[in-house]
Amino acid sequence: MSFIKTPIKGMPEHLPRDMAVREFVINRIKENYGKYGFSLIETPAIEHIENLSNREGGENEMLIFRIMKRGEDLERAVETGDPAALCDCGLRYDLTVPLARFFANNMNALSLPFKALQVGSVWRADKPQKGRFRQFTQCDIDIIGDHSNLAEIELVSATAGMLHELGLGDFTVRINDRRILKAMAAAAGFPEDRYGEVFVILDKLDKTGVDGVRDMLAAGGFSAGSIDAYCGFFSGGGKEARSSCSGYFAGRLDGVLPEGILSGLDEIMRSAGKIMNGGDIVFDPSLVRGMSYYTGPIFEIALADTSALSLSVAGGGRYDEMIAKYTGSRTPVPACGISIGLERIITILKDRIDTNAGKDSAVYLIPPGADSRRLEELFIKAKKMREEGKRVMISPKNKNMKNQIDRLLELGYAEFIELAPEGEKTLNVKG
Amino acid sequence: MSFIKTPIKGMPEHLPRDMAVREFVINRIKENYGKYGFSLIETPAIEHIENLSNREGGENEMLIFRIMKRGEDLERAVETGDPAALCDCGLRYDLTVPLARFFANNMNALSLPFKALQVGSVWRADKPQKGRFRQFTQCDIDIIGDHSNLAEIELVSATAGMLHELGLGDFTVRINDRRILKAMAAAAGFPEDRYGEVFVILDKLDKTGVDGVRDMLAAGGFSAGSIDAYCGFFSGGGKEARSSCSGYFAGRLDGVLPEGILSGLDEIMRSAGKIMNGGDIVFDPSLVRGMSYYTGPIFEIALADTSALSLSVAGGGRYDEMIAKYTGSRTPVPACGISIGLERIITILKDRIDTNAGKDSAVYLIPPGADSRRLEELFIKAKKMREEGKRVMISPKNKNMKNQIDRLLELGYAEFIELAPEGEKTLNVKG
Repeated sequence: MSFIKTPIKGMPEHLPRDMAVREFVINRIKENYGKYGFSLIETPAIEHIENLSNREGGENEMLIFRIMKRGEDLERAVETGDPAALCDCGLRYDLTVPLARFFANNMNALSLPFKALQVGSVWRADKPQKGRFRQFTQCDIDIIGDHSNLAEIELVSATAGMLHELGLGDFTVRINDRRILKAMAAAAGFPEDRYGEVFVILDKLDKTGVDGVRDMLAAGGFSAGSIDAYCGFFSGGGKEARSSCSGYFAGRLDGVLPEGILSGLDEIMRSAGKIMNGGDIVFDPSLVRGMSYYTGPIFEIALADTSALSLSVAGGGRYDEMIAKYTGSRTPVPACGISIGLERIITILKDRIDTNAGKDSAVYLIPPGADSRRLEELFIKAKKMREEGKRVMISPKNKNMKNQIDRLLELGYAEFIELAPEGEKTLNVKG
Repeated sequence: MSFIKTPIKGMPEHLPRDMAVREFVINRIKENYGKYGFSLIETPAIEHIENLSNREGGENEMLIFRIMKRGEDLERAVETGDPAALCDCGLRYDLTVPLARFFANNMNALSLPFKALQVGSVWRADKPQKGRFRQFTQCDIDIIGDHSNLAEIELVSATAGMLHELGLGDFTVRINDRRILKAMAAAAGFPEDRYGEVFVILDKLDKTGVDGVRDMLAAGGFSAGSIDAYCGFFSGGGKEARSSCSGYFAGRLDGVLPEGILSGLDEIMRSAGKIMNGGDIVFDPSLVRGMSYYTGPIFEIALADTSALSLSVAGGGRYDEMIAKYTGSRTPVPACGISIGLERIITILKDRIDTNAGKDSAVYLIPPGADSRRLEELFIKAKKMREEGKRVMISPKNKNMKNQIDRLLELGYAEFIELAPEGEKTLNVKG
């Protein structure tokens, strides 16, 4: 049997320096969201295949890592000759499906509205490629049981606060609403059964511009009148025009959009905008987001990168209909969340964070054959130093001590003491 | 398609109160081991099936959650008609196999000796039963690249320090050595190809006593002389006799055990024993441990439970031959580790820890139709309080406010303010 030393393709390994940054960022995220009243929960990595393949997960459902049945169940499944029957569960591809199931299963034990924070791995069997992993970490906050836009305001404010605290204050929140997307398509006169296609095309506006969208719609055989009317919604104005969505539409959606939706979105923008620390929040009528389960406001947050490219780091929205599918009740359960991609934030922060700052530490190097009584004294002394909070490494001295010290300097150790035969000898090391 | 609200059988869900305890304990463990110079690393949850089924994992290899191949690989495998061909990877069942692979893959980037800390989920497809989960968390520390018993001393000391810091100072470390186990079997004259069977029987001594071991060996057809000689090794003395293993054997293993092994074990006990804070370390000639990969000292740590039962919380040992199988080199890479079962520690601690201690917090309850300008003022005020470190929950006021407040009291909130039409109104709530 051969042993394979490389990880499965596309799966990440985190070395000490990388992990120190991850821990630093994750702890800040937990702390910050904790101050907004979000409570950590955790769900299993493995979910029923029925829940993962329920057609709410969009393209992610094609990327499931499927787990085989076990024991007699597997034997019976093999006999059927149907490969689909071999699998009964899979690894979660996001934290929203598990949260909806978790809430339905535990709702009687939870305080409502329930403000959940999750930090966990998700898995997608994507084609491995540079910078895209098949196991990665999502940080999700969700508010379940609040139908008012207090939920959206708190989600956006908390995430803005978190980005600010991490030193990522230069960001833009773009906001839209699923119902506005539908109203624009209705106002343009597209047939309702083809809205999905229209949104897939609209989603490419960032890359192709309005003219590209126009061409793709024409290629799709939509009527010229509809295309003209539709594209008119996306040609308007700069940042100023996008600070209010009531203003943006100026009555153009009257009759196709229920009252209160535009003003509700404006309220979110105004309230969240007041506490943004340098970040921005704007209405973006072309924001689509892929998941089919969204029912109301949707948002996406992008950082102004040093390379002047915008980099999406978070996204989310309201999904008021998903949880009732798990509770089995007819009563809808309002829900709303934001998901942050940890790896993107870490890529940006990794060279900025000094994880060793303020850490008092020392290394004791032990040459071969050191006197055992002196060693015992060292153990006792080191124990005391550790109890006082100091980081103390006791390590055999390598033949190539220079290389050993260089590596330990990278881990943040500054003080090096050799337990030489004549006594402790502090080494003169340049950090 | 039906939605299932219960988790997969045997998979844990962690609610807010449970998670707060877990976070508290995990953070203390990380902090404590960090002070001993262990660096956090992380490996993927998924490993090559070849590495998981390499016959080093003992019974765990029968408990693998196997993951199906994907895309064309799956299609080709289905055509073969062989169910074993359908799987190319699986979920890890421990953190030692992934660490060995990780080290072999990254050794040029790591400082030697490499002191690794891992906190991560592992999965075992055990039959679900009360108190045993199919996804659970292990905390492992390992020292790779140190052949001296400095490694064992540091592992045991660091774990003793961690238990002490968690308020679990009343523990016993039992220590033995794989080579001593073999020497006892050799001295008793058992045939070498049946040592494995003998150790499986010896492993039951805790439950059956020496007489039970004697009966099982007889049932196995071993010679009476060998059984007598073997059982003689386990009849000796109380705690006093077990404080030194050289003393315990008093020359009885001369000729079957290389020099230095007994004195090396005594050195570990003496050095670690000096810094144990109330914990104990004793030699236990009947300690076996199941994994076949151990090559030297092995240990197990048990807590003196309130119910006076001893509860094993950690175990480990030296496995000098495993890593070379991944590096592919003939040079052995010394390695030694201890694994802690987080769930056991949490079971004991969960009622002792006040995770809300010292947290300043407040809840603002918002009645329906609250004035939006006053709400905006509240958002700004809450932002400031959060920046100053306070936990602030802003939540719609439920119809059943008493129930709402009771649940929030459980989450540690103490101060409740209603945004009433006439202004902020502090509620008189008894915690």
